[in-house]
Amino acid sequence: MAIQLYELKGAGGCRFSPYCWRTRMALAHKGLEADLIPVRFSDKDLIAFSGQSRVPVLVDGKTTLSDSWTIAGYLEDTYADRPSLFGGAGGRAVSLVLNAWMDKVQGPLIAQMIVLDIFNGIEEVDQKYFRTTREQRFGNSLEDIQAGRAERIEDFRAGLEFLRDVLGKQPFLSGEAPAYADYIVFSGFQWARSISRFELLDAGDTLHQWRQRILDLFDGLAAKAATVSG
Amino acid sequence: MAIQLYELKGAGGCRFSPYCWRTRMALAHKGLEADLIPVRFSDKDLIAFSGQSRVPVLVDGKTTLSDSWTIAGYLEDTYADRPSLFGGAGGRAVSLVLNAWMDKVQGPLIAQMIVLDIFNGIEEVDQKYFRTTREQRFGNSLEDIQAGRAERIEDFRAGLEFLRDVLGKQPFLSGEAPAYADYIVFSGFQWARSISRFELLDAGDTLHQWRQRILDLFDGLAAKAATVSG
Repeated sequence: MAIQLYELKGAGGCRFSPYCWRTRMALAHKGLEADLIPVRFSDKDLIAFSGQSRVPVLVDGKTTLSDSWTIAGYLEDTYADRPSLFGGAGGRAVSLVLNAWMDKVQGPLIAQMIVLDIFNGIEEVDQKYFRTTREQRFGNSLEDIQAGRAERIEDFRAGLEFLRDVLGKQPFLSGEAPAYADYIVFSGFQWARSISRFELLDAGDTLHQWRQRILDLFDGLAAKAATVSG
Repeated sequence: MAIQLYELKGAGGCRFSPYCWRTRMALAHKGLEADLIPVRFSDKDLIAFSGQSRVPVLVDGKTTLSDSWTIAGYLEDTYADRPSLFGGAGGRAVSLVLNAWMDKVQGPLIAQMIVLDIFNGIEEVDQKYFRTTREQRFGNSLEDIQAGRAERIEDFRAGLEFLRDVLGKQPFLSGEAPAYADYIVFSGFQWARSISRFELLDAGDTLHQWRQRILDLFDGLAAKAATVSG
């Protein structure tokens, strides 16, 4: 039986979750096909069998897993003969540092740029849940969280200068070829790109060019994905 | 001939440069001895032979190198039979991301906590150069840059939550054992610890315990080093 991936779905089939994108890219990197099963915020019963309530959930034969980092490690170990996601034990360990930075530092900054767009890009049945949980998390209304993003974007871009430094020395965050460290950081940009028209990166930015290289991978897997813009 | 390491020196012999600490730890990790040659900011002529003006400078036989990242790569390649600094090609590539984060994000935040302490911890002959260059860099007086650190420290600590997340899953940033990713982040704390009495980490902090584990490495190499406190 093919691998199954349960992933978050917005209106019009848009897949926007940065965690799910990490798994999508990891599967493609390993050359693995998967049946994609869309899950709305309000479809938690669909993944109750996983013993928790968050996507991505991956089912591979008798194995059921959640958490994108756990899934990446499983794919690396189980499909060890396929292209590596981490390039060795050191790469795996330090990619966890980048993964944590993404979740704790970069993710919240992006969320504050697009949180109202997400609200507007998900189905009505999900909106109440989304508004309640996110307003509680940020201690503010969705409207006020996102307000002023045009003034914040320059600081956001300046804060990513260290990534530009790296891309001045090697073509990918993972080195000569893309791998999981790239997918981690890419997932945040793909999240925004999927569900918001607000542009996080300037067209002349080294990071914009790097993002385009990741978008084009695997026959344009991420580039071709549905966005809220259609 | 033994390896020679030219490194920055403050008053009383204190070695405080975070870049030089990365190299010190890398040499110890490789089990390499080095003659340490102290260089003050005003001793640039001592390292002019390296073709540039910054420490660390490493001389290994006929090879002269500067820049801590370049030196780490050289040590990894040249002493490949000794314990690895990166744990493979992936670890090396992603450690560069962490190195860039340290230099562009974390380093400046630490500098703003200790820059006046550094001024007070270097020899008088270096003070004018240090004040001029750092006030130009930050666009403010040393006194005003450092002012308010007691109010900023909580935000600083909160911003490192992602590192605590990692240390909740593995004992070192490099995985099961310490390696260069740890030395990169450690170097910032050792910088502060060497030349300032201002405590960046709370004693109960996971990061404080991790820092202690790094301080104790190599027979307490970093723990035993001279500090401004004596």
